[in-house]
Amino acid sequence: MSVKKIAVLTSGGDAPGMNAAIRSVVRTCAYHNIEVVGVYRGYQGMIEGDFEEMNARSVRDIINRGGTILKSARSKDFKTPEGRKAAYEKLKAAGVDSLVVIGGDGSFTGALLFNKEFGFPVMGIPGTIDNDIYGTDFTLGYDTALNTVIEAIDKIRDTASSHNRLFFIEVMGRDAGHIALNSGVGAGAEEILIPEENIGLKKLLESLEKSRRTGKTSSLVVVAEGDKIGKNVFELKEYVEQHHPDYDVRVSVLGHMQRGGAPSCFDRVLASRMGVKAVESLLEGKSNYMVGIRNNKMELTPLEKAIKGSSKIDTELLRVAEIMAT
Amino acid sequence: MSVKKIAVLTSGGDAPGMNAAIRSVVRTCAYHNIEVVGVYRGYQGMIEGDFEEMNARSVRDIINRGGTILKSARSKDFKTPEGRKAAYEKLKAAGVDSLVVIGGDGSFTGALLFNKEFGFPVMGIPGTIDNDIYGTDFTLGYDTALNTVIEAIDKIRDTASSHNRLFFIEVMGRDAGHIALNSGVGAGAEEILIPEENIGLKKLLESLEKSRRTGKTSSLVVVAEGDKIGKNVFELKEYVEQHHPDYDVRVSVLGHMQRGGAPSCFDRVLASRMGVKAVESLLEGKSNYMVGIRNNKMELTPLEKAIKGSSKIDTELLRVAEIMAT
Amino acid sequence: MSVKKIAVLTSGGDAPGMNAAIRSVVRTCAYHNIEVVGVYRGYQGMIEGDFEEMNARSVRDIINRGGTILKSARSKDFKTPEGRKAAYEKLKAAGVDSLVVIGGDGSFTGALLFNKEFGFPVMGIPGTIDNDIYGTDFTLGYDTALNTVIEAIDKIRDTASSHNRLFFIEVMGRDAGHIALNSGVGAGAEEILIPEENIGLKKLLESLEKSRRTGKTSSLVVVAEGDKIGKNVFELKEYVEQHHPDYDVRVSVLGHMQRGGAPSCFDRVLASRMGVKAVESLLEGKSNYMVGIRNNKMELTPLEKAIKGSSKIDTELLRVAEIMAT
Amino acid sequence: MSVKKIAVLTSGGDAPGMNAAIRSVVRTCAYHNIEVVGVYRGYQGMIEGDFEEMNARSVRDIINRGGTILKSARSKDFKTPEGRKAAYEKLKAAGVDSLVVIGGDGSFTGALLFNKEFGFPVMGIPGTIDNDIYGTDFTLGYDTALNTVIEAIDKIRDTASSHNRLFFIEVMGRDAGHIALNSGVGAGAEEILIPEENIGLKKLLESLEKSRRTGKTSSLVVVAEGDKIGKNVFELKEYVEQHHPDYDVRVSVLGHMQRGGAPSCFDRVLASRMGVKAVESLLEGKSNYMVGIRNNKMELTPLEKAIKGSSKIDTELLRVAEIMAT
Repeated sequence: MSVKKIAVLTSGGDAPGMNAAIRSVVRTCAYHNIEVVGVYRGYQGMIEGDFEEMNARSVRDIINRGGTILKSARSKDFKTPEGRKAAYEKLKAAGVDSLVVIGGDGSFTGALLFNKEFGFPVMGIPGTIDNDIYGTDFTLGYDTALNTVIEAIDKIRDTASSHNRLFFIEVMGRDAGHIALNSGVGAGAEEILIPEENIGLKKLLESLEKSRRTGKTSSLVVVAEGDKIGKNVFELKEYVEQHHPDYDVRVSVLGHMQRGGAPSCFDRVLASRMGVKAVESLLEGKSNYMVGIRNNKMELTPLEKAIKGSSKIDTELLRVAEIMAT
Repeated sequence: MSVKKIAVLTSGGDAPGMNAAIRSVVRTCAYHNIEVVGVYRGYQGMIEGDFEEMNARSVRDIINRGGTILKSARSKDFKTPEGRKAAYEKLKAAGVDSLVVIGGDGSFTGALLFNKEFGFPVMGIPGTIDNDIYGTDFTLGYDTALNTVIEAIDKIRDTASSHNRLFFIEVMGRDAGHIALNSGVGAGAEEILIPEENIGLKKLLESLEKSRRTGKTSSLVVVAEGDKIGKNVFELKEYVEQHHPDYDVRVSVLGHMQRGGAPSCFDRVLASRMGVKAVESLLEGKSNYMVGIRNNKMELTPLEKAIKGSSKIDTELLRVAEIMAT
Repeated sequence: MSVKKIAVLTSGGDAPGMNAAIRSVVRTCAYHNIEVVGVYRGYQGMIEGDFEEMNARSVRDIINRGGTILKSARSKDFKTPEGRKAAYEKLKAAGVDSLVVIGGDGSFTGALLFNKEFGFPVMGIPGTIDNDIYGTDFTLGYDTALNTVIEAIDKIRDTASSHNRLFFIEVMGRDAGHIALNSGVGAGAEEILIPEENIGLKKLLESLEKSRRTGKTSSLVVVAEGDKIGKNVFELKEYVEQHHPDYDVRVSVLGHMQRGGAPSCFDRVLASRMGVKAVESLLEGKSNYMVGIRNNKMELTPLEKAIKGSSKIDTELLRVAEIMAT
Repeated sequence: MSVKKIAVLTSGGDAPGMNAAIRSVVRTCAYHNIEVVGVYRGYQGMIEGDFEEMNARSVRDIINRGGTILKSARSKDFKTPEGRKAAYEKLKAAGVDSLVVIGGDGSFTGALLFNKEFGFPVMGIPGTIDNDIYGTDFTLGYDTALNTVIEAIDKIRDTASSHNRLFFIEVMGRDAGHIALNSGVGAGAEEILIPEENIGLKKLLESLEKSRRTGKTSSLVVVAEGDKIGKNVFELKEYVEQHHPDYDVRVSVLGHMQRGGAPSCFDRVLASRMGVKAVESLLEGKSNYMVGIRNNKMELTPLEKAIKGSSKIDTELLRVAEIMAT
């Protein structure tokens, strides 16, 4: 069965580069003379038939914009067989025969289920700042988020240095420490706490003490949301102040700004490449894959593997982080 | 008595533009063939004699850097007569005959006291992001902080728009709503909560409801730290969710990054002008003044007035904010 | 005659903050229950009746965007009586009774003529990065352009410092040196060449020599497009290399990027204030004025004066620049 | 022979990330208890013995700064046997036994020669924005330069869109089109001209015409310095205007700002990793290699190969560029 009309949606947390990916999907369809519709608000919009026909012009001037023009939303309805059935019928009624889903693990799980139930061709594009998806070296938005984080930390360092203070800075990453580890190295943090590793409170204190002895008058500790040390940044502050009353500790939670902003060149190029690969893979009759970049090349990973697998932290970089904190 | 050697220090919270002001003080001294020393860590460094002779070269390449190369610190000792006496003697021993203090209200109070006790000529430069000092339309760092805040909120809006969410965003300003009001207008916030005005929780809810009725699917509320509505951003979130369970509310506290970063052109130029004015006013035999910009001109305000007076919120801008939220 | 429907257009070179001004005009109309139409492509679109009804929602998410959603264009036709007559009839046919023009000198001249011929109420908002309009301390886009320029020069300084080079950097400003003078001070330039002042080639060389003698190993000279020294940046490079073969001179023309980018907070707030003032002045029955900011307050200047007057360079700042280059 | 004291220098054009690499080399030495000296002004400073002992503290707060604190310079003297002999003796006299060179092709050629003549262990780190070095997927500074370029082009697009104009934008790259191709895709350029490919003037005109027919009202063409079309950007403007007098063409040469600025997170992390690898490879007794990143892993390439080999343009990305311009 040949592909004639593709639907594209964004789902889950938004990430910089999603718009660039939408643009790429739409333009690749235009290039191959295939029709394309945008689905608003993810799976929920699919159920409600909230579609818009798109062409090369409708994605003008969005490559540099954060967020997603198609919006994103959670959908409880799509978790029910009835919801998915309704979505299928809406797609059919609109003449859509294939689906590109830009999102993360949860979004792919939905896509896979949808395919299993209706044999509907689906293709995934990994869009999330957390870089926690198996099958791709980089997810869309991750590189941008790293730059956003280090720019914020650079600013905080101005204050930290001026006042000889210790800062705990919380960055995103519930299950994966990629953002914390890379931004920590990039920002020159003295210590980095990630979900994959528990250095323990005692070692943290020792490390801070060592920094101080070697003449550092200010220190930054980058902490992933999901760090395993058992304390959030506010509790860490209390703990350190209890044990070292002479420390002037401050806390900063970078929060949602990490998800927004104009995408970096890397993310825009990656999104452009992924969109082409996703559409052309569908055209080749493939389904149930996630597009990824591995060793600088576009590759396909079965959605099932992408969901089950996990993205490992780079142990070489952990060591680099330790050496840099000398 | 002619001025031969000036000391310059930064005190209180750091602000972008402090380095540019230090540079200006130092170069103006060089221009007039006066000696100049930098005092590290504010009044505490003055007490400890932590001085460094400076010249035009020592302030190279700092005009664009946040923080303060002279560092800043609180000094309990300077609040005691003994501390101030020690500071006076250290200055005398170093041949210093005049002092430029870059900081806020608290720093100026110290300077004034120091002058009263020892007849030591002092001149103040208002450096604080809060813009809460009487006698100047703009404090150093305020313009930069506004840009930092709106850039962060622009990023958050990407996410807010993509997900149809309501965000409470806390910005700095314990006693003054300048940052909240101006960044709120600049970021296109739907509502702005400031210390100078209590719109009340009921009106806040009404305003959010009105936004929603007119078709806005996402909303940003900018909240000053010291808002008078009686709830912090986390409590506001709870309150709104209690009364409107269908709202998807998020909170972001921008925090310390607001104090850092490369100063804006406005702050660099302002700092350059203020440094010249401060040094040349000392050369003219003046003392106990704060340099300020009023109606685009350099003006002097007695330190006493600068400390006691307060900086009013712009009521015209409050009205503009209301109209813009239409 | 009461105002019922306002048209708004942007004309001349685009400037950051134009979109924020459009938004403000539209929302102020909505606030006062007046209709508003956007005119595309300036006066040319007015002649062609290229209008769009606008409301509070149509200006969503544009406050932070550079350029102008209404686009801008030159119009030869509007310089003819026939063209202006056609424009008048198109406005009448659309029920428009008042006009807000966002632009510079040339745009205001057109507006004034239009008013004289048809008695059509007009109000101007100064939008141009050059800050060369009489009747306002700041034009829309100027503050943003200054920040764009210093960020670019900060980057160039990295290279200049690393290589001990002399850079001539050309910034915008054919008739006015505001951008060059302020960005020059803000970027810490060693010398600044502006249209209002001719320091002469000899003094330029002397100044560079002096810099070198005092130990500066790299130098930046900021040059306004319209500098009066009689040479453009490329000729300056040749001249200096002829007279000082040991200099390693480089040239950078910043160009069009100075006109774009997200507006600064200052420009967004200024645009919001100006839009309110423009609409409400029309509502009060006023016409033929330009809205401006003087001494931090909104003020009206007769368009005739705004066009004929000129914006003087700040001589105090010229002196500050000289002192800073010590 | 065991390594006891390493010298590090930067040579050739500066690139963002050089300071981060210096910091990494210095801290890795500190970590392994090896001495380290910084050599100022590249090979010229080596000849003149312009050295400074460095430790973990001397590289504080430089990870985020563009340029190179060790400065860079061309050295004619180092091209002579006498010059290199002098350099060797200066190193010996200072007790230095190994050398890390951060730079490009030319710098590595010097290092290789130096090793051949004196058996002096050398290790290269590829620092150049052009990404034109064989043996590494990414050179230091390349990722930052891409972001600088697209941010500038984003600004230019604001103006291009507002005025319906055609822009030719020249970016760096004399021999390699990596910057042009990637920034062109990232900025959403309608056409990209690179040294590796000559699309010909006729096809360029056709492509522009096609853009126009499909309703694009503004166009951006990104041109590498060394494009093979036989015309620079100013000549291209003339050519297009001659053949299509109705086009409103503008030119922008981005110039030296592409070399500066705070490095991206990617470049900071890459620099940190490369510094560790360079020092530890010397410690393992290796010499005459360049450190590179290939498929996300640190790898060594013989300097000879790095110099002779060339870095190919990505043909898949060329195709993506074409599809995106649909």
